[in-house]
Amino acid sequence: MKAAKVVGKTKRKLSRALHQRRRSSPGTAPGTLIADPEAHPPRIHVASYDESGIEERDDIDVATAIAMRGKHRVLWIDVSGLADLGVIEEIGKAFGLHSLALEDVVNNHQRPKVEDFDHSIFIVTRMLVPERGVETEQVSMFLGKDFVITFQEQHGDCLSPVRERMRRDRTRLRQEGPDYLAYALIDAVIDGYYPVLEAYGEMIEQLEDEVLADPDPRQIDRLHQVKRDLLNLRRAVWPTREMVHAMERGENHLITDGTRIYLRDCYDHAIQLMDVVETYREIASGLLDVYLSSMSAKMNEVMKVLTIIATIFIPLSFVVGLYGMNFDTSSPWNMPELHFRYGYPAVLLFMALAAGGLVFWFKKRGWLGERRR
Amino acid sequence: MKAAKVVGKTKRKLSRALHQRRRSSPGTAPGTLIADPEAHPPRIHVASYDESGIEERDDIDVATAIAMRGKHRVLWIDVSGLADLGVIEEIGKAFGLHSLALEDVVNNHQRPKVEDFDHSIFIVTRMLVPERGVETEQVSMFLGKDFVITFQEQHGDCLSPVRERMRRDRTRLRQEGPDYLAYALIDAVIDGYYPVLEAYGEMIEQLEDEVLADPDPRQIDRLHQVKRDLLNLRRAVWPTREMVHAMERGENHLITDGTRIYLRDCYDHAIQLMDVVETYREIASGLLDVYLSSMSAKMNEVMKVLTIIATIFIPLSFVVGLYGMNFDTSSPWNMPELHFRYGYPAVLLFMALAAGGLVFWFKKRGWLGERRR
Amino acid sequence: MKAAKVVGKTKRKLSRALHQRRRSSPGTAPGTLIADPEAHPPRIHVASYDESGIEERDDIDVATAIAMRGKHRVLWIDVSGLADLGVIEEIGKAFGLHSLALEDVVNNHQRPKVEDFDHSIFIVTRMLVPERGVETEQVSMFLGKDFVITFQEQHGDCLSPVRERMRRDRTRLRQEGPDYLAYALIDAVIDGYYPVLEAYGEMIEQLEDEVLADPDPRQIDRLHQVKRDLLNLRRAVWPTREMVHAMERGENHLITDGTRIYLRDCYDHAIQLMDVVETYREIASGLLDVYLSSMSAKMNEVMKVLTIIATIFIPLSFVVGLYGMNFDTSSPWNMPELHFRYGYPAVLLFMALAAGGLVFWFKKRGWLGERRR
Amino acid sequence: MKAAKVVGKTKRKLSRALHQRRRSSPGTAPGTLIADPEAHPPRIHVASYDESGIEERDDIDVATAIAMRGKHRVLWIDVSGLADLGVIEEIGKAFGLHSLALEDVVNNHQRPKVEDFDHSIFIVTRMLVPERGVETEQVSMFLGKDFVITFQEQHGDCLSPVRERMRRDRTRLRQEGPDYLAYALIDAVIDGYYPVLEAYGEMIEQLEDEVLADPDPRQIDRLHQVKRDLLNLRRAVWPTREMVHAMERGENHLITDGTRIYLRDCYDHAIQLMDVVETYREIASGLLDVYLSSMSAKMNEVMKVLTIIATIFIPLSFVVGLYGMNFDTSSPWNMPELHFRYGYPAVLLFMALAAGGLVFWFKKRGWLGERRR
Amino acid sequence: MKAAKVVGKTKRKLSRALHQRRRSSPGTAPGTLIADPEAHPPRIHVASYDESGIEERDDIDVATAIAMRGKHRVLWIDVSGLADLGVIEEIGKAFGLHSLALEDVVNNHQRPKVEDFDHSIFIVTRMLVPERGVETEQVSMFLGKDFVITFQEQHGDCLSPVRERMRRDRTRLRQEGPDYLAYALIDAVIDGYYPVLEAYGEMIEQLEDEVLADPDPRQIDRLHQVKRDLLNLRRAVWPTREMVHAMERGENHLITDGTRIYLRDCYDHAIQLMDVVETYREIASGLLDVYLSSMSAKMNEVMKVLTIIATIFIPLSFVVGLYGMNFDTSSPWNMPELHFRYGYPAVLLFMALAAGGLVFWFKKRGWLGERRR
Repeated sequence: MKAAKVVGKTKRKLSRALHQRRRSSPGTAPGTLIADPEAHPPRIHVASYDESGIEERDDIDVATAIAMRGKHRVLWIDVSGLADLGVIEEIGKAFGLHSLALEDVVNNHQRPKVEDFDHSIFIVTRMLVPERGVETEQVSMFLGKDFVITFQEQHGDCLSPVRERMRRDRTRLRQEGPDYLAYALIDAVIDGYYPVLEAYGEMIEQLEDEVLADPDPRQIDRLHQVKRDLLNLRRAVWPTREMVHAMERGENHLITDGTRIYLRDCYDHAIQLMDVVETYREIASGLLDVYLSSMSAKMNEVMKVLTIIATIFIPLSFVVGLYGMNFDTSSPWNMPELHFRYGYPAVLLFMALAAGGLVFWFKKRGWLGERRR
Repeated sequence: MKAAKVVGKTKRKLSRALHQRRRSSPGTAPGTLIADPEAHPPRIHVASYDESGIEERDDIDVATAIAMRGKHRVLWIDVSGLADLGVIEEIGKAFGLHSLALEDVVNNHQRPKVEDFDHSIFIVTRMLVPERGVETEQVSMFLGKDFVITFQEQHGDCLSPVRERMRRDRTRLRQEGPDYLAYALIDAVIDGYYPVLEAYGEMIEQLEDEVLADPDPRQIDRLHQVKRDLLNLRRAVWPTREMVHAMERGENHLITDGTRIYLRDCYDHAIQLMDVVETYREIASGLLDVYLSSMSAKMNEVMKVLTIIATIFIPLSFVVGLYGMNFDTSSPWNMPELHFRYGYPAVLLFMALAAGGLVFWFKKRGWLGERRR
Repeated sequence: MKAAKVVGKTKRKLSRALHQRRRSSPGTAPGTLIADPEAHPPRIHVASYDESGIEERDDIDVATAIAMRGKHRVLWIDVSGLADLGVIEEIGKAFGLHSLALEDVVNNHQRPKVEDFDHSIFIVTRMLVPERGVETEQVSMFLGKDFVITFQEQHGDCLSPVRERMRRDRTRLRQEGPDYLAYALIDAVIDGYYPVLEAYGEMIEQLEDEVLADPDPRQIDRLHQVKRDLLNLRRAVWPTREMVHAMERGENHLITDGTRIYLRDCYDHAIQLMDVVETYREIASGLLDVYLSSMSAKMNEVMKVLTIIATIFIPLSFVVGLYGMNFDTSSPWNMPELHFRYGYPAVLLFMALAAGGLVFWFKKRGWLGERRR
Repeated sequence: MKAAKVVGKTKRKLSRALHQRRRSSPGTAPGTLIADPEAHPPRIHVASYDESGIEERDDIDVATAIAMRGKHRVLWIDVSGLADLGVIEEIGKAFGLHSLALEDVVNNHQRPKVEDFDHSIFIVTRMLVPERGVETEQVSMFLGKDFVITFQEQHGDCLSPVRERMRRDRTRLRQEGPDYLAYALIDAVIDGYYPVLEAYGEMIEQLEDEVLADPDPRQIDRLHQVKRDLLNLRRAVWPTREMVHAMERGENHLITDGTRIYLRDCYDHAIQLMDVVETYREIASGLLDVYLSSMSAKMNEVMKVLTIIATIFIPLSFVVGLYGMNFDTSSPWNMPELHFRYGYPAVLLFMALAAGGLVFWFKKRGWLGERRR
Repeated sequence: MKAAKVVGKTKRKLSRALHQRRRSSPGTAPGTLIADPEAHPPRIHVASYDESGIEERDDIDVATAIAMRGKHRVLWIDVSGLADLGVIEEIGKAFGLHSLALEDVVNNHQRPKVEDFDHSIFIVTRMLVPERGVETEQVSMFLGKDFVITFQEQHGDCLSPVRERMRRDRTRLRQEGPDYLAYALIDAVIDGYYPVLEAYGEMIEQLEDEVLADPDPRQIDRLHQVKRDLLNLRRAVWPTREMVHAMERGENHLITDGTRIYLRDCYDHAIQLMDVVETYREIASGLLDVYLSSMSAKMNEVMKVLTIIATIFIPLSFVVGLYGMNFDTSSPWNMPELHFRYGYPAVLLFMALAAGGLVFWFKKRGWLGERRR
């Protein structure tokens, strides 16, 4: 249903994906943070919880957020908007985050990955927000002994199901540690791909119907767009799969065995996404073949009509041209037919027979074969 | 024989495959069961057996089914229809099944897989029921120390051979434990793919004959449909192969070495299916090439006829048009040919020679080459 | 030389390959033997030999064959024709063969494979008999401590070189145990692929010459057939390679280290076959491109002739039509050219110049370019 | 922006890549250095530094450079221009570099790789200098306990960011050992690919727009060039990825654990490059399909116009030719229509109706379908 | 430069590659030598050397050659020409070579490989001799404790650089053992591929230029030939890479660690060859696309000219035909235009306007678009 709304928003994404990576000023060391000039101002949301209770604060400053550490078993700091490097650096210092990881937070065109640091795990995922088409937004995540810190590019995300679950008592989320929260967030991000893929499924089916019914060059443009978007989705989904797999198989003690079972489930979903993307890509490729065959069939049809008309009438035109010649009929050798009493009807009859013969020959060759189809 | 009946029923499956996965209400935790609104009402069939005897009960309630545990060495509870979550939860509680696995039972678009839990193995397979085309139905299976529990989406399956074997004394099935039953069920599911693949084999051969005899655009539509269905089949068969392999190689003590030999046999069959699906896909791709070549050959033929006719008659029409001009023949320079005694026969002769020359030239170039083919 | 004879006999093989696998009557357990209704009656040939001597018996009954066990170091029972299940079962019982393996003997559409049972190794190969095209025949083989048992679908095979070697004293074959015999048989089966592949090589080269000389739609049909046959061959050769590799690397003590060196040689041959099949497939695919390019070049040629003729004569026909108009020349404005003394020659000259100009323009564009090629 | 400047400079690179590798004079042993006749004269730049300070010298002779060893913790000798083999050999002797590695320095068409020698690591990277298009320049690097030696083909590189960072106190670079310098150099080389890839991204997008708007054969030439350049880039990027991976995973003690974390970051960037190159290649391939579809659609359009015009006017021309015949109308059977009072209007009307009927028929078949698109 | 000379000599190689492998007479055991009837007579060249000196003998008999063993540290027997099986068997016996390996020497269509026997290593390489195109010649090599034995199919090879190095004192070759000699020979064989690949590079570039400038069907034939030759080269290069890798990684004590470093260098070269072959193949495939696009563009051009001419003149011809009708103008309804004073100029004007209108319409649609390209 939302196919049209979702598809086609990634145009111009291609080259932009590479822009920011370059460190702009020469002499900048790796690990130095440089803000994207288009970044949004940060807004900090904090949730501190365990079985006993939950404390939530929205739109607070970074010092307050950090100070909440230790109140409960799990602290989740969620920063949306990356314009203020001070905030990122302060959090990094307070929680002992590696500068290279912080650099990846700011250069928000990373592939999904997981990196194991001493006291924290750094996770990069890419989130699809339905309103923004296939343009993915980077969600960077740090998982520590008693905290999860997430950085998003913009406000608005697909994590609200996790927040709502957190607010209810007695959910598994409230009983488990930060590793389960990290899992829940990754799971929510992966869940966010489903409606978008669904929209592409509908899009492809619609295209399929149209191509089969009436091939048209503009379908190729749309098909190309769909294939390109699927290529982009694959670039996000493929490393997500690897990332979840690495988390599940990893040896870091920050992730408990109980959570690993959930990650395996998550991994299944990532494989399923992969599977669907690949299937769509194959169907889209097949559609191109169908399109080309249909077009060539249409062209064949056009050519056949032309050939039939021309093949029948060109010889007839020759005949009537023949008797339009102005030879001097005073010589008995010159066009005596013109003076025959039944010359005209005879010519008409001859032409009718010739045309009929050709039509019969065409039928035999199957060129008029409307009936046979 | 049943090719036409089987093929082409999966239309519209594409996007539906993704619908249910999304947990509908925000805030729903993983492991929460939500019934598919289109699910069938459950019907429970139980068989409890060992060498000594067998007790079968059909259409009973869930408590009765659970109470039968322990009567014999093997208990098989088969639930078809997933509309009543209470049933699933009750069974899950009684046999200690993991909530994530139960969630996968209900969200019936899982890929075939095997998951090893503490006291049970969770197996997902996808069953083909010939009457329903390539639309696979999920069969979820739990294998425990003394039980096998299967969940199917609908009534009616391809497992009756197993049931009949079970009723006969002295079969291997009756002498072995639940792992052998699980193997027998998986084997029956895999067996169910053969007639469907056979139907596609016939379909492709028929298409092959038609394309070679008389290429037609509608064949491309059918070819596209066949390729898409094979793509769907591959998505079901490929993970089945992996699933059987994982069971055979797995280290779970619930599966005995004797059963592993049978699973190896099962694995061979899955590979064979894979092999056939891939071969069909390659043949189908090759057919497209044949189709396109045939079409372009046909078009060439049409063009040649047009060219021959036009090339012969257009110059002749020019000649007769020439002598149809109305120049004032009182000037001796203006078209004196018209007054020649043999002007008309000479022109006719000239045109016959010209046409003959062209026909000869065409023959030399091989354009009339009916004889050479 | 035998290309035509060999190629094209596999038609209709496609779907048949899947027929028999299904156990026909419901309730049949795995390991139950069901004869193929088209199977040949069995004929048993036995050879018992070691360095000291050889005893051969042909067309004997199964009990006699079994009784020969132990006479020499190696007993080879060769059963061709699988119609009599009693024979197979009796041999199975006498030599302790697994029922699943015996089932695979009868369901003769197995992929080449090797399976390690307790006291025997079960080997499936597929034999090409030149007279039967690419339709492979299953040769099942059991290798034990003191025996090799082979089952073939039909009488007639490519194993006679082994038999002749066996009859001569002092050959390595006579000095080695049953594992060397198994190797020799597998090697003979692999050798049997060479003449068939050679025939396809010739076939492809002939097609290559024809396509380059004169593309014709029927070549595409043959090319399609060749590609399909190569696909079938690949399906037989690929698992053969794996099978030999598994035997060479396997840990079963039934195969001695000396024989493993020979198996490595065998493996090289299987890889070489694989290599040739893949190369042929790539060349065949390349040929299709050549064909399509040639066809489109031919079409281009045809179109150019049409265009040249039409483009020259259509304007000329217009001119002569113009002076065929019947305007009342009593008005001095109406077609005064008709009354010019040199009107007709002037028009002829004008038309000759126009035609010449067009020919010159075509030449400049390279459309008449016979000379340039 | 710089797309046009960057793209298309690699022409003629293809065969040259293979020239120098051949040792020119027969009898030359491996490890013998032979200068490329086109090599640049060497220029040596040296930097010796640690936390305490830095000493830089430019354009000095080789003995002075070697003598600086040991002054600080890290010595970086950078030689640009490989014409003087004496320089290379002298350095090789002084630092104990393997002769095979030195040969690879001179034969500057190596693939990126890392080789582990006893007391040094030999690293080959390929540097992109924006001004030179996709023609990569080999940067060979030796990493030892207290030195990094780099050899470049030409003056001018993309390493100045590293040099500037080195000059500033308190940067990480100054505090770490030579392994970190090697990392920083590799990272700078990889960074150098981003602007070039960006240019290709823009190029492809521009081509995409043009192909969708108005397909033109010259786009295919450019597309071919782009694909070829991407192929070249892939040949440089792919082994770079492997090289960084081998360094990160390698066991050589010359690389500290701290630096390995940075190399992992580097590896991420290499994967990202790979990813972008592959995506571009896929998009470029897709573009070809779009181009071909558009062209065939255009052709279809042309053919339709021709067919419509010809199909309408050829029959009409026949009719007017018919009444241009000169039958002797003194016979009442010969063309009495000519004498009808309303003969001419009747014929005009008939022709108008015929033409209208054809137009209607075309519309029904969708051939005039301007409105429907 | 030598492109034309090198390319296209492999024709007919295809099927021959398979001929000899079949053991011709039934009953021949593996390990039996059967001479190729087309084999050359053998010629033996021996070099015995160590640091202290070298003794070389050419064209001697086999006994003399064998007797030279032990004179120096390394003995190299080089046999070119395989017609005399006695020579091969005698050498085999003297140096304890395995009969299967000797069989592979004679059946000279082996893939490059390395096989580890007890006291010797058997190496197969395929040598390219520039004069013979891409037809490779098998060089079989045995490496033992104190000898290297090589068998070549023909006289003349690319090993003379090694021989010349051997004759000079103090080269590394003279100081090292037989493993280094084996390396040097393999390296020389690999070096021999470079000039041939270079020729193909030039060939492809030339084709590229021609296809872009003026597509022509004969280019496709050449392209097909080039692709086929590259396929053949790949079949030789790919296993060479594996062979060198296996030697470098192998555990045989006959190869010293020092030599392994040189083999690693050799491996790099083999990978580089592989890389070039694959790149050429991709470029060649891309060229086909360019060719097809160019051809279809050319065809489009031709069609447009035809359409423009026909579309302009067919309606005009109708008009002039109209006024050539012979209606009896005594009726005022019949063609009164013919009697108008300005009828003829009016018709001319009308036709000029119609033609102009069509030309304008074509321009607007971009069909005359010479200027826009």
